[in-house]
Amino acid sequence: MTILGDLLSTIFERRYRTAAPDRRDNRPMEDLVSSLVGTAGDVTGLAAASTLLQRFQEMEDSDKLQFFRHLAHDMNIDPAGVRTALDAYEASPNRKTYTAFMAAVEPKRQELIRRLNQIPGATEQLVRMRADLLRLGGADPELQALDQDFRHLFISWFNRGFLVLRPISWESPAHILEKIIAYEAVHEITSWEDLRSRLAPGDRRCFAFFHPSMPDEPLIFVEVALTADIPGSIQDLLAGDREPITATTARTAVFYSISNCQEGLARISFGNSLIKQVAADLSAELPGLKTFVTLSPIPGLTKWLSAEGIAFQDADPKLLRTLAAYYLLSARRQDGQPVDPVARFHLGNGALVHAVHAEADTSAKGRAQSAGVMVNYLYDLGKVAQNHDRYAAAGEIAASSDIRSLDAAAKKLDLREAEAAQQA
Amino acid sequence: MTILGDLLSTIFERRYRTAAPDRRDNRPMEDLVSSLVGTAGDVTGLAAASTLLQRFQEMEDSDKLQFFRHLAHDMNIDPAGVRTALDAYEASPNRKTYTAFMAAVEPKRQELIRRLNQIPGATEQLVRMRADLLRLGGADPELQALDQDFRHLFISWFNRGFLVLRPISWESPAHILEKIIAYEAVHEITSWEDLRSRLAPGDRRCFAFFHPSMPDEPLIFVEVALTADIPGSIQDLLAGDREPITATTARTAVFYSISNCQEGLARISFGNSLIKQVAADLSAELPGLKTFVTLSPIPGLTKWLSAEGIAFQDADPKLLRTLAAYYLLSARRQDGQPVDPVARFHLGNGALVHAVHAEADTSAKGRAQSAGVMVNYLYDLGKVAQNHDRYAAAGEIAASSDIRSLDAAAKKLDLREAEAAQQA
Amino acid sequence: MTILGDLLSTIFERRYRTAAPDRRDNRPMEDLVSSLVGTAGDVTGLAAASTLLQRFQEMEDSDKLQFFRHLAHDMNIDPAGVRTALDAYEASPNRKTYTAFMAAVEPKRQELIRRLNQIPGATEQLVRMRADLLRLGGADPELQALDQDFRHLFISWFNRGFLVLRPISWESPAHILEKIIAYEAVHEITSWEDLRSRLAPGDRRCFAFFHPSMPDEPLIFVEVALTADIPGSIQDLLAGDREPITATTARTAVFYSISNCQEGLARISFGNSLIKQVAADLSAELPGLKTFVTLSPIPGLTKWLSAEGIAFQDADPKLLRTLAAYYLLSARRQDGQPVDPVARFHLGNGALVHAVHAEADTSAKGRAQSAGVMVNYLYDLGKVAQNHDRYAAAGEIAASSDIRSLDAAAKKLDLREAEAAQQA
Amino acid sequence: MTILGDLLSTIFERRYRTAAPDRRDNRPMEDLVSSLVGTAGDVTGLAAASTLLQRFQEMEDSDKLQFFRHLAHDMNIDPAGVRTALDAYEASPNRKTYTAFMAAVEPKRQELIRRLNQIPGATEQLVRMRADLLRLGGADPELQALDQDFRHLFISWFNRGFLVLRPISWESPAHILEKIIAYEAVHEITSWEDLRSRLAPGDRRCFAFFHPSMPDEPLIFVEVALTADIPGSIQDLLAGDREPITATTARTAVFYSISNCQEGLARISFGNSLIKQVAADLSAELPGLKTFVTLSPIPGLTKWLSAEGIAFQDADPKLLRTLAAYYLLSARRQDGQPVDPVARFHLGNGALVHAVHAEADTSAKGRAQSAGVMVNYLYDLGKVAQNHDRYAAAGEIAASSDIRSLDAAAKKLDLREAEAAQQA
Repeated sequence: MTILGDLLSTIFERRYRTAAPDRRDNRPMEDLVSSLVGTAGDVTGLAAASTLLQRFQEMEDSDKLQFFRHLAHDMNIDPAGVRTALDAYEASPNRKTYTAFMAAVEPKRQELIRRLNQIPGATEQLVRMRADLLRLGGADPELQALDQDFRHLFISWFNRGFLVLRPISWESPAHILEKIIAYEAVHEITSWEDLRSRLAPGDRRCFAFFHPSMPDEPLIFVEVALTADIPGSIQDLLAGDREPITATTARTAVFYSISNCQEGLARISFGNSLIKQVAADLSAELPGLKTFVTLSPIPGLTKWLSAEGIAFQDADPKLLRTLAAYYLLSARRQDGQPVDPVARFHLGNGALVHAVHAEADTSAKGRAQSAGVMVNYLYDLGKVAQNHDRYAAAGEIAASSDIRSLDAAAKKLDLREAEAAQQA
Repeated sequence: MTILGDLLSTIFERRYRTAAPDRRDNRPMEDLVSSLVGTAGDVTGLAAASTLLQRFQEMEDSDKLQFFRHLAHDMNIDPAGVRTALDAYEASPNRKTYTAFMAAVEPKRQELIRRLNQIPGATEQLVRMRADLLRLGGADPELQALDQDFRHLFISWFNRGFLVLRPISWESPAHILEKIIAYEAVHEITSWEDLRSRLAPGDRRCFAFFHPSMPDEPLIFVEVALTADIPGSIQDLLAGDREPITATTARTAVFYSISNCQEGLARISFGNSLIKQVAADLSAELPGLKTFVTLSPIPGLTKWLSAEGIAFQDADPKLLRTLAAYYLLSARRQDGQPVDPVARFHLGNGALVHAVHAEADTSAKGRAQSAGVMVNYLYDLGKVAQNHDRYAAAGEIAASSDIRSLDAAAKKLDLREAEAAQQA
Repeated sequence: MTILGDLLSTIFERRYRTAAPDRRDNRPMEDLVSSLVGTAGDVTGLAAASTLLQRFQEMEDSDKLQFFRHLAHDMNIDPAGVRTALDAYEASPNRKTYTAFMAAVEPKRQELIRRLNQIPGATEQLVRMRADLLRLGGADPELQALDQDFRHLFISWFNRGFLVLRPISWESPAHILEKIIAYEAVHEITSWEDLRSRLAPGDRRCFAFFHPSMPDEPLIFVEVALTADIPGSIQDLLAGDREPITATTARTAVFYSISNCQEGLARISFGNSLIKQVAADLSAELPGLKTFVTLSPIPGLTKWLSAEGIAFQDADPKLLRTLAAYYLLSARRQDGQPVDPVARFHLGNGALVHAVHAEADTSAKGRAQSAGVMVNYLYDLGKVAQNHDRYAAAGEIAASSDIRSLDAAAKKLDLREAEAAQQA
Repeated sequence: MTILGDLLSTIFERRYRTAAPDRRDNRPMEDLVSSLVGTAGDVTGLAAASTLLQRFQEMEDSDKLQFFRHLAHDMNIDPAGVRTALDAYEASPNRKTYTAFMAAVEPKRQELIRRLNQIPGATEQLVRMRADLLRLGGADPELQALDQDFRHLFISWFNRGFLVLRPISWESPAHILEKIIAYEAVHEITSWEDLRSRLAPGDRRCFAFFHPSMPDEPLIFVEVALTADIPGSIQDLLAGDREPITATTARTAVFYSISNCQEGLARISFGNSLIKQVAADLSAELPGLKTFVTLSPIPGLTKWLSAEGIAFQDADPKLLRTLAAYYLLSARRQDGQPVDPVARFHLGNGALVHAVHAEADTSAKGRAQSAGVMVNYLYDLGKVAQNHDRYAAAGEIAASSDIRSLDAAAKKLDLREAEAAQQA
């Protein structure tokens, strides 16, 4: 037994000693569920959990739906029981009445999910189970409530304090890297060569959050370019023939792509922590870094312009920038939040709208969604808290004076006639 | 960046980038709490969490108690709110009403604890916080309810699926080993030499559960001796001058000491899983192992005998064994469970009372608590489920025929005159 | 400082603290050499070593050649000195005279190479230096002698006891895997997908030898297929649409590709150890494995047949197999060894010629070099020693009775008219 | 197969697949030797190596000696063969004649030792074999020559480039730490508590060199204290009740103990590299460190003073310091080197005699060997090369002006009457 052997058992033991599913166990799923919730987590229970997860994985969608309905309906809270327990607690608040209250308000399916999670590898399977639920559940109110139970547990399990930040590099295992290729959601990675160009050069970085119980599955990752200045074109930033700079001479870290990896972790937010953690880590590693920005798409721009009847097809770069600034600062939903989802994400994190660039994404996708315009959100670690607070409290959007000017200019234009104005 | 560097960041990143507590932050604890529960987990929130945990750690007990009272009283559920939310949910069960219900039934202090857990190292500090609560809370009903919230969250966080089993050997790090020495609760480890004799020989093993967020703190550990036969004396088993046997020739694995390490994890059970996991692992490593038993103390024996007025001071070995078998099988609490706490633990796990031995623990402690008698509980992996079920359902205790005979014999004795009988 | 941090420093420390080359150091290479051989390995010496290696790496071939000539000529042994030292030793053999003798017979360039090797990363650079020497040295006798010094030191440094066997899998780091793609010398790996198909399925394995001082550079690797039976076609074995079998059900391990990776380690043999180590490891992991064979090319077959004037272009499968068996067993060089280089390698390792297959490699290369015929060499671990000894002592080739029959049949044919015979 | 599994195999594979010694093999050692040198490193050879090493390990000293004599005598060079090969090489220097020459000048026992080293764990056993040789060989000239062969190979195997520097901390494995306790040669470590006090505090460090093939055996280690100022008392430096300082505030790194661990590696020097590597590493980790010094014993002081007839028993601190400075700078051996062995070591490394302190080591050993005086050698990384060169070339000892003054003052004293002078 060696240090490494010790370590090996410590971290990855989970994989080797799976309680094997019992394929001869023909009981209906409902019976497996009862058996699992009824036992005290002993050998029988683990085998039932293993069998149940295996069976679920191989089910048709219709059977999965039926299983979900069973959880949603038959393992729900009992309102009468809740009232009784609440009355008893209120009459005499103590450990016993409070424990009974807690038991009454928690549907049995939560305990089921926790018990399923006792076996090795279960966390990953439960995340996939929720992905199935989201895919199949639709607008069914009962299934949406069930989803809320999954989410409640997952928020606790995937607490920031349990996540580990892991650099992804060209020295990372191939089975992780192929997932990076598959999960990249912003600027497609077209080949292993393309991936290499994003990981191997000295001025590129990538980081992902992992959960210790899912060591092979990134939860979210961010790709970073180290540059001299704030960039205004994604094609230039990723150009295959560019000359990499030495990391220690870089002044700017550019977060140019952030991708969530797990559909089963929808509505559980990691991005905020990830960006700030990576910024802090890079800062410590490379004291020369002074600026942390994104180079972000504006996915809703052309759609919104079209819906507003604002012509932009023939706009020159300056006008496009003006329209983009206006869209980012002034286009709001009914709840007062920005129309643009990427803007909502970064502003909610405390970032500031720093600059917009025309001809910044000349790909077909870039032209289609934002007429080629991109935006830099600036993360000033000394101000994100204040920005966040103002944004959260009053919907106030932090922006550079340049962006403010563009927004102001846009408001003076008769935008419905922008095209005419431009042609004049 | 290397494989190991990558790995390093993966697993232990948590340690290096602690959000530093802000020692100039003079706000009252209540304000820190509000600030933490109010923010969305961003930089401000992490700093508040860090400051709060640091401040708590340095507090006097009286201030800790006041902090607990604040959580217990001011961050409790609102029964009226629960009723309103429940009515709304019942009237129209859907995601929105269910989410509102879940929010209403969960006291805000639970969210506080989850947010405290977002910073590196927090899990360990929260476990210590609960240890303080248990120590200071006494029988206060509100504080017992608060403890129930900690326990509820900890059960979820310390789910078996998240724990890692780690062999503890003479090649383990010294800072872990010194904790093994400190936490050993059954047969004291008197020195590093003594520890070495329990870890280094080829016929000794030790295993502990760890949580990935507390990599330096064992949660529970078990010490194992590999032997030819089932042992009947702890002093023989641990004799310094014994000749170690080759592990592959061993037929029996003896669990001779199980110690819980964390007071803050009281009433969260790991022992059952640990024994069964270790038995399964040893079985896979050493196919020659056929028998898994304990050599356990009987901590309540002499106390119970005295309370029952049964004389045992001058009993011969046979009578002592008879009395012990009788105690283990027939001495029950009002709820029907065995009087002996160690018996409750192993029988609850599905073990069987296999044999009792006189002169088995000749230490002062052994003589005092059980007149030197010890017991083997047998873990027959093929029968633990059935044993457990019968015990749980009907209080039926599995025992060998030998033990049953001793118990039966005891019942025929006029025990109040046992001494006289013996002398006759 | 953690276990892993500790480990990290242990293994990869070498990378981080390179004695930096001094680019302002303009001394001629000869002076750097003197300075390095003259110092006692202290700071000055390390800097000189670092500068020298850096300079060499950036040199034109003509300058490299000049450097080699300096080593070969000016740092050679002095025959007169050898004689004097030998006389003194013979007159009075003791530590002092023997040490002087050892110093006299070892050319100073060996000490130079050892001192260059004191800095981190030097081993890899010295291996590349020898590759340059082999490429540039040609038949120059002095440079061949210099090469012999490199080889002498490398044999000591790359002693089997210092090498580590490392499984290569789809979970290996990408920067290692891209080298596997580049170094594969038998059956080209055409893409990352192709690589995946050779590593990821449960019935595929790959192993490489590494040296601890060159952790990123495989020295030699072997690809293995786990199968039910001994295969007779490389295309079938590697078919993209085959159904992988479960490793534990496999009876046969097929070594279907062995590639040396480092030109600078030419004439330092690892293959023998690698095959036997891998066979032993697989045997331990998968007790079901009963047969260890290769599926090997016969690179010299068609060339030899042509040279011998034996027509084979229109031979049917049976005749091709007959010719191949005859070639393998009876076509010998003047020194009595087989003509075929792959045969020499495996027979020298103690393998047995087990079977030959026509239509076994239908690739263009396979058809060109061996008319599509391939051969299985069998490694019977219980007999390799005996096979090796007979082969080494008497050139006796171990072969199955089937192969012997084919060889015997070939000898009865009038091979120069084989084609005619076949057509009759 | 995981990253760690992969890694595990990489580094420690050596341990698990030992070619097992064949205990039924009764051949005389001489036959095993022949068999091993005769085979080509295949299975038979590995088994012979394993058997030979095992047998040697269990031998009586007299049999070990006989084995050594066999190597020394029967596997020696053949002078006539050397002459023939040399003549042939001189007549026609080419690869073939040079290879033959190399073969002739190398005694067969060197090849034997290399082949023994092919099996796992052999390096450590060979180091122990040399320790036996040094212990048993005495002044026997043949055995001293044999030792020279071991040393020649070990210098190549234990080349600085192959060693790894590993921090030793309180988180290191206990089986390594117990060796640190055992091997400490300067200031005894009296208990695990004592060890803890040298490793665990934030202002203490320890580093060791390891060889990858002997991962459990330190070769040499150094203990370091981080301090504000240059210390003048070992008892103060190691005081159990001192208040540790924060590492980042330290200005000085004090090497207060350096211990060689392996007798079998005598006369193979690691200390020079170790100190400089550790100084460089600490410098990188803690930029606040400005001074690197030792606090060293002066083991030969009182012995030399007595031999010189210089009274020192009643000397006051100032006189003791004067005598010590005089001893360190002016007491030379016939070859011009300092009498003091520790001085020779540090001055040979390029250090400078910085200061001497009376009452610096008040232990019995300290009083006995140096009347309680200790010395700081200063490692000024910018000057060690120059210091070394002057010392090596001209025996010139670098010293501070203070030390020079003391030495000069001593020379003016009539030292034979020092005691009298003091009393006046």
